[in-house]
Amino acid sequence: MIDLYTWTTPNGRKVSIMLEETGLDYAAHPVNLQMQEQFKPEFLLISPNNRIPAIIDQDAEGGPVSVFESGAILIYLAEKTGQFLPASGAARAKVLEWLMWQMSGVGPMMGQASHFINSAPEQIPYAINRYLEESARLIRLLDDQLAEREFVAGEYSIADMAIYPWVSAGFEAIRNAKPDMVGDAANCVRWIDALKARPAVAKGMAVPEV
Amino acid sequence: MIDLYTWTTPNGRKVSIMLEETGLDYAAHPVNLQMQEQFKPEFLLISPNNRIPAIIDQDAEGGPVSVFESGAILIYLAEKTGQFLPASGAARAKVLEWLMWQMSGVGPMMGQASHFINSAPEQIPYAINRYLEESARLIRLLDDQLAEREFVAGEYSIADMAIYPWVSAGFEAIRNAKPDMVGDAANCVRWIDALKARPAVAKGMAVPEV
Ligand SMILES: N[C@@H](CCC(=O)N[C@@H](CS)C(=O)NCC(=O)O)C(=O)O
Ligand SMILES: N[C@@H](CCC(=O)N[C@@H](CS)C(=O)NCC(=O)O)C(=O)O
Repeated sequence: MIDLYTWTTPNGRKVSIMLEETGLDYAAHPVNLQMQEQFKPEFLLISPNNRIPAIIDQDAEGGPVSVFESGAILIYLAEKTGQFLPASGAARAKVLEWLMWQMSGVGPMMGQASHFINSAPEQIPYAINRYLEESARLIRLLDDQLAEREFVAGEYSIADMAIYPWVSAGFEAIRNAKPDMVGDAANCVRWIDALKARPAVAKGMAVPEV
Repeated sequence: MIDLYTWTTPNGRKVSIMLEETGLDYAAHPVNLQMQEQFKPEFLLISPNNRIPAIIDQDAEGGPVSVFESGAILIYLAEKTGQFLPASGAARAKVLEWLMWQMSGVGPMMGQASHFINSAPEQIPYAINRYLEESARLIRLLDDQLAEREFVAGEYSIADMAIYPWVSAGFEAIRNAKPDMVGDAANCVRWIDALKARPAVAKGMAVPEV
């Protein structure tokens, strides 16, 4: 049994998608960010950076193992199950590079765009534009990558699961606000539709129920 | 032989440190970011996101393998050599979570701080403060983590190598500008000194020669 600590946000959904895809037995525990539950001492013990998602694998060899950071959790679950991350060679390297591209680029930059558009106490045009431009650049790059491949690293993998919750939301937001920035991104649209049609993705995107 | 494409910046140094620590045979090729060399077509073939670092492992089984994203390169080299990343279990999960914490938090947030302080065309106090505060929070968290461990994930690992080039520079910058934000961070100071004293770290931090 895996305990998943999560909320209704893209970084949490990456992990619930993976749990659904692998069929692992898990229980989702909502950590209500609006109520600041991520600062509760018992949560900080497993996620000292006060962020969701985090897991505890109750059945790990040698006793329970906790993991925070969505990218680390995805690798952990892939290695536990032998699924969605090739064991070696170039195929493995390609999945890890696009996973890292999501973790260091797509997530933080779309996160900053959302902050300056929706949450900052003042509208700062320079910052809004900086992060919208960078988000759009990342979407255009993904579109190029998907022009020659069905999935971002070839076969369907944890890299797709990491990118989907961010890009499916970010792409629509940008296309509505500034259509010129991303163009039609036809390959992204095809890929978004393909992921959306997977039952495990649909289920994972609905976690946690609140 | 590993070909390393890099520049005089923290993300490149993570990889040159690892190459020095493992003793792998490598050649460093400078990609001059001031000259926009990261946009050259031959570089984009191995690093489509136009960022350093990237590697080509000429001796990989089955033919040369290229990898971009520093975090993916560190995992690739750790798995190639069997060093600085435990093969399984909780010890492996701890290294990966702190590596991801660097990739998604320390790097992007200190990068934004540096952008708004040094490069943005206007000084925007809200943005400067946002990223300084977040950088300082991350340093305080690292300090807590190091209070009970010699290295960030217990044993010396690729997580330390990823964090060091960013935090050693960021900590001094913040301490000089706003000493109250980070306090004395005695555990960080001890850890920075310990890494600095490693010959491989000193050598890796001097790559590339330009
Ligand atoms: N790099 C982290 C980011 C996690 C993250 O930013 N989580 C957000 C929700 S999507 C959160 O918990 N925020 C609460 C807070 O910062 O206090 C990961 O990928 O797991
Ligand atoms: N997440 C990437 C970030 C790499 C990165 O930001 N590299 C910078 C130098 S430290 C770069 O090449 N910038 C050139 C550009 O963006 O055009 C990694 O860790 O490899």
